[in-house]
Amino acid sequence: MEIPADTSLLLYWLTMLASIFSAAAGVIDARNKQFDLFGVLIIAFCAALGGGTLRDVILDRPVFWIGDSSYLVFTWLGALGTFYIARKIELSPRWFEIPDAVALALYTIAGTQASLMMGTDWLIASFMGVITGVAGGILRDVLLNEEPLVFKGPFYATASWSGSLLYAVLWQKVDPNAAVMATGVLIILIRISAIRWDLHLPR
Amino acid sequence: MEIPADTSLLLYWLTMLASIFSAAAGVIDARNKQFDLFGVLIIAFCAALGGGTLRDVILDRPVFWIGDSSYLVFTWLGALGTFYIARKIELSPRWFEIPDAVALALYTIAGTQASLMMGTDWLIASFMGVITGVAGGILRDVLLNEEPLVFKGPFYATASWSGSLLYAVLWQKVDPNAAVMATGVLIILIRISAIRWDLHLPR
Amino acid sequence: MEIPADTSLLLYWLTMLASIFSAAAGVIDARNKQFDLFGVLIIAFCAALGGGTLRDVILDRPVFWIGDSSYLVFTWLGALGTFYIARKIELSPRWFEIPDAVALALYTIAGTQASLMMGTDWLIASFMGVITGVAGGILRDVLLNEEPLVFKGPFYATASWSGSLLYAVLWQKVDPNAAVMATGVLIILIRISAIRWDLHLPR
Repeated sequence: MEIPADTSLLLYWLTMLASIFSAAAGVIDARNKQFDLFGVLIIAFCAALGGGTLRDVILDRPVFWIGDSSYLVFTWLGALGTFYIARKIELSPRWFEIPDAVALALYTIAGTQASLMMGTDWLIASFMGVITGVAGGILRDVLLNEEPLVFKGPFYATASWSGSLLYAVLWQKVDPNAAVMATGVLIILIRISAIRWDLHLPR
Repeated sequence: MEIPADTSLLLYWLTMLASIFSAAAGVIDARNKQFDLFGVLIIAFCAALGGGTLRDVILDRPVFWIGDSSYLVFTWLGALGTFYIARKIELSPRWFEIPDAVALALYTIAGTQASLMMGTDWLIASFMGVITGVAGGILRDVLLNEEPLVFKGPFYATASWSGSLLYAVLWQKVDPNAAVMATGVLIILIRISAIRWDLHLPR
Repeated sequence: MEIPADTSLLLYWLTMLASIFSAAAGVIDARNKQFDLFGVLIIAFCAALGGGTLRDVILDRPVFWIGDSSYLVFTWLGALGTFYIARKIELSPRWFEIPDAVALALYTIAGTQASLMMGTDWLIASFMGVITGVAGGILRDVLLNEEPLVFKGPFYATASWSGSLLYAVLWQKVDPNAAVMATGVLIILIRISAIRWDLHLPR
């Protein structure tokens, strides 16, 4: 079942916002690396759009940002803005926790939805949601030559996976808007709670 | 020439077994990294299914695990089992040498066969076999932020490449079952001999 | 607008030369890593053909080297030649600066052209040119477990991006040969000047 057009439009603009924030967070992570301006734009691209690119390549769909340059424009505006602001004032990674959790929720929902629409089963769809949600951050850390935070950070992949499983279960059973809302709230709640109380899965 | 249906079915189940062992070996490699449970599942996915995913993306075939969730199920069963066993008893990487060599052989044969079936020439088919055989291990090491063992380990890529070249030569010249057997034996023999006597190519 | 057949043929052979030099540079970069022969061939493949592979996968085109094994042959000849020469005499990375700049120009032009031919807008086409130009080097450094030089090296991505933007602007406005020439000269000039005078973008 398609997400209704107005919800879809809202998600589209929220995703543009998410691209700005993911790009900004990528730039902050790269700040100790002395990358130059174009290096920063490439890191921002990977952080913001890498997960969705991987999802589309694996599902053999047209890559989402190829047909709509707004994604690149917003990602790079976020990166450039952060790059110049970061030279003036100290940006704390903590300010990005909530936007980052929102981005994780949006990417996860978009990935799970795209996979379900192509007829994959719930397990595969939920995993495609996780790939969409976390692969950008993994790619960013690999390019920065660091151990991916995703594997260690409090409940990052867990929040994404819980949400994508919920979404796959709710899909075609409840109203699409309700499924999107419930999933988004679950992912953001798990992620923010895990950061606040430093929760971890068994290692 | 297609591999006969019964050989194909045997290879299918052997590949499921190979997924379990590759996933298990990936978890063992990650044991010093303090990854959480979902991090471990992602590493296991990359180790077991990453090579075939890359092969299908490059050959523009449907990605093999998208249409059959058994691959994810067996990979994650292998990973979860190893994750819990590894907390109780010390698992030696040496126990995985033979299963790992078998997995390398199976993935190499599957990759070479898939490429030949799409009409590529022998050189490209043999390289696609190597990609299928070794890319999962490379991806695992990149995510663990380590130098890929594949480039240094005794005859890892060499065993895969020798096998895929043999398979490309034998294909459509001898009985398919014989080609699969000969290739499998060659890869496993080269790899196990190289480990036993610590053989290396010139560096 | 298609590039004329004779220019296209010239670019094809220049690209084969570029593959040889990119592969050689990849081998030189790997020389401190004690990789074995097959490891070196895989690094050379990534360095020389990785960027174009990523471009084709993202644009959903057939991967360029699948249908023409000359790419693999020239890449591996370059890698094998360098591998054996490097064991006899000390090869200086400086000798590769000009061939490397030429390769960057060729890959950038080929990527931008491929993207424009598929109807993407100028911003996306210029970025695809950069991906084609620099992703091979990024992949090489990731596999060597080093911070990608592309992000720090003097004007590497900048040269590529300036060229791809120029090419996207000139495309269908001027003679195709002139567009190729102007772009090539711009990229090589920026890159070589930046190396000579150690120019950097703001960090």
